[in-house]
Amino acid sequence: MLRVLVYNEFLHEKDPSCRASAIYPEGIHAAIAAFLEKEEDITVSTVTLDTVETGITREILRNTDVILWWGHMAHGAVPDDIAALVQEEVLNGMGAVILHSGHKSKPFMRLMGTSCSLIWRESDDLERIWTSAPGHPIAQGLPAYFELPGEETYGEPFGIPAPDETVFVGWFSGGEVFRSGCTWVRGNGKVFYFQPGHETYPTYKDENVQRVILNAVRWAAPTCRITDCMDCPNPPKAQKD
Amino acid sequence: MLRVLVYNEFLHEKDPSCRASAIYPEGIHAAIAAFLEKEEDITVSTVTLDTVETGITREILRNTDVILWWGHMAHGAVPDDIAALVQEEVLNGMGAVILHSGHKSKPFMRLMGTSCSLIWRESDDLERIWTSAPGHPIAQGLPAYFELPGEETYGEPFGIPAPDETVFVGWFSGGEVFRSGCTWVRGNGKVFYFQPGHETYPTYKDENVQRVILNAVRWAAPTCRITDCMDCPNPPKAQKD
Amino acid sequence: MLRVLVYNEFLHEKDPSCRASAIYPEGIHAAIAAFLEKEEDITVSTVTLDTVETGITREILRNTDVILWWGHMAHGAVPDDIAALVQEEVLNGMGAVILHSGHKSKPFMRLMGTSCSLIWRESDDLERIWTSAPGHPIAQGLPAYFELPGEETYGEPFGIPAPDETVFVGWFSGGEVFRSGCTWVRGNGKVFYFQPGHETYPTYKDENVQRVILNAVRWAAPTCRITDCMDCPNPPKAQKD
Amino acid sequence: MLRVLVYNEFLHEKDPSCRASAIYPEGIHAAIAAFLEKEEDITVSTVTLDTVETGITREILRNTDVILWWGHMAHGAVPDDIAALVQEEVLNGMGAVILHSGHKSKPFMRLMGTSCSLIWRESDDLERIWTSAPGHPIAQGLPAYFELPGEETYGEPFGIPAPDETVFVGWFSGGEVFRSGCTWVRGNGKVFYFQPGHETYPTYKDENVQRVILNAVRWAAPTCRITDCMDCPNPPKAQKD
Repeated sequence: MLRVLVYNEFLHEKDPSCRASAIYPEGIHAAIAAFLEKEEDITVSTVTLDTVETGITREILRNTDVILWWGHMAHGAVPDDIAALVQEEVLNGMGAVILHSGHKSKPFMRLMGTSCSLIWRESDDLERIWTSAPGHPIAQGLPAYFELPGEETYGEPFGIPAPDETVFVGWFSGGEVFRSGCTWVRGNGKVFYFQPGHETYPTYKDENVQRVILNAVRWAAPTCRITDCMDCPNPPKAQKD
Repeated sequence: MLRVLVYNEFLHEKDPSCRASAIYPEGIHAAIAAFLEKEEDITVSTVTLDTVETGITREILRNTDVILWWGHMAHGAVPDDIAALVQEEVLNGMGAVILHSGHKSKPFMRLMGTSCSLIWRESDDLERIWTSAPGHPIAQGLPAYFELPGEETYGEPFGIPAPDETVFVGWFSGGEVFRSGCTWVRGNGKVFYFQPGHETYPTYKDENVQRVILNAVRWAAPTCRITDCMDCPNPPKAQKD
Repeated sequence: MLRVLVYNEFLHEKDPSCRASAIYPEGIHAAIAAFLEKEEDITVSTVTLDTVETGITREILRNTDVILWWGHMAHGAVPDDIAALVQEEVLNGMGAVILHSGHKSKPFMRLMGTSCSLIWRESDDLERIWTSAPGHPIAQGLPAYFELPGEETYGEPFGIPAPDETVFVGWFSGGEVFRSGCTWVRGNGKVFYFQPGHETYPTYKDENVQRVILNAVRWAAPTCRITDCMDCPNPPKAQKD
Repeated sequence: MLRVLVYNEFLHEKDPSCRASAIYPEGIHAAIAAFLEKEEDITVSTVTLDTVETGITREILRNTDVILWWGHMAHGAVPDDIAALVQEEVLNGMGAVILHSGHKSKPFMRLMGTSCSLIWRESDDLERIWTSAPGHPIAQGLPAYFELPGEETYGEPFGIPAPDETVFVGWFSGGEVFRSGCTWVRGNGKVFYFQPGHETYPTYKDENVQRVILNAVRWAAPTCRITDCMDCPNPPKAQKD
């Protein structure tokens, strides 16, 4: 079984004045868990900001193959030591799929080492998402492009290290472009960032978006799991021949 | 002095039925040479398809710091051994700036090793070119984005190896996106591909385009020049200590 | 089934004055096929220089998941159009595992675009091969390092594009180092270069070397297969919304 | 003028029981400053752990082109907010040259996002440092390889993101290999890691080591300086055409 853990801060959806409360009444994490759980080989847990201290522990992460991360207004409320745990387990081999405004989350910023900045605008732009690496596992089953009738606009420059592969590039009707789907290897783990998913649009109900996330979960699943990647061993000199 | 050689196949511009003949009556190479020659430290030569056999020789390339390449309908007419010479001198250290439809030119395809394919359309789209790496030398002096009122549309997927850096990303009013400015190191040489420059638009008269090309020429200038990078030497065993 | 095709020029082994004739009397290709065929999900074909024209065709490559390539003294005898076919099918999705002196083979050089040069020496050095990316699929089951009591020495500089990942680094008792296991994505295909395998040593009988090659075959197997990656389509303008 | 700031924790050298106290009585920072200051276009400041709070401020870093960092036993004593400042100024454009045991320093680990782990041994191994990218600016003036008669042994796996370029690879007489000189672009800044430099050997008095560090300082000097790279601006929708 592929063990997935979905983190969502779960704040916008509990605010009745926010459109998110109508679109995702049970939270973005529940919407994501719902379509992933349809897969026979995937089991999903969820954790939200109010349970983050007990829901993201070393023990739990050691039993997680891939973590998904959605956060926005409360990045700062995630304790540093939990962000460090997530980073370290990715380096040990756990996969990570970072969603939308998670670009400024602590785990992603720690893994990238860069600003992860971008430009943005909320103006109900249509987004067209182009597949720029059709042979990549995350692009399987996706068309040449697909559209989301409304999304928050994200634009370049995106302050990331050069991706290993740029799988998707987004086009916005308001005139912006964005490297919307990017991959990196970090330590023994794989990281995928995927841009769509603003809380005021039903993006996670879109079939193509769901396909991307499902593909990304399978792609990010660990090859192996190492438990001491932060150590610097001091081995003796080996005998040659 | 920075010694630049501009190759242009120079066919469209000699066809009176093509808009290029009115925009670039003396050829795209002449238009490019004109703005580069304004720089006190740059000297420019040009070569066209009809003189390619005498204008691109080992001797000439050894005395060239950066080559620019514009070709479109006659890629196949460039002899393989001349394409190989250009490739080899880039590996030895010469810089290369590949323009627009040069994506399918022999020297660029040899250097990339990939399909260099893309999708395209001629429909007078407006292009907006975003700077995605504002700290890169090629982006200096450029705004957050600039626009070209008409350009041939190029779209993803672009069949290239993952670039070292993606300096520009293009947005087209017809709905396409493209990694418009990309860099690679190959051997001792640097390669920059820049997408704008269709023959039926006055793209090379645009100040921002000229700035990009000038920056690229300076960026691609060699650090050093090696003359035997294709060899595999067989050195004796060195004495240790 | 994973369909593997092993190309070996098969010349050294037929020369009675060469040590290879005693080590690999049936050819390096046969030795490699022998250990790969033990896997239940792998089927192996072989082709040698004297049958290359009928043994490497578009039809055959379309039915090959991963090609292995061993060549040395007769790189030039492989026809250019066959090398181009191999390159094109890798870009379409076929995996490629390039062995030892295949660094100067036509398919590898076409895929890399660089000199692929190195320094070398035949002096019976011991080689110690370090795993530099223990989390990589190709490194699974391998120790921190393993040794080959004798190998041809290959040394830096190795004239390759910066690898996506450097999985192994070789140490030679004579004082050289080499990036011995490197990966690249090219188009829809994956490429792995692995340095050990000189014809005068029983390298392909070493269990660790066999493990690396088996892992590499599984890693390089295609995600999908595209049959027209060299085309540049001209799609109509799509209707937005 | 190129403004260089050398950070050295300066602890080993003040311990009379450590060989470093005899080799670098005025500190490693002073030894590095001494050879850099011979260059007419370079001006050098130094800062040590006991003055780090006043010696590394936003104001000072804004007036620094390249920072060098040597630390070992007291990485943890560098305040997090100072490490964050250094990281942020690199992202804004400042260059960084990380020396030897600085691989586990806070600024380097923050910039890489990975474990930065390695294996190590103190056994007076001879190190031979090979140039693997002879065309790189940092390799200019260096031979095919140079030797240090004694160095601390560092070995793979080195827990770093795949380097943009691997400029040097180290060979140790005890049997280890290491990617000894690596480059990365992070934000608008450039980062170079260089492995030699253990405090108990006179490594920074070696002419080749000095050449590498001088080249690295020139290479890492900023193209431009941006002061707000961490921001996410919210620009209005631009008018197209």
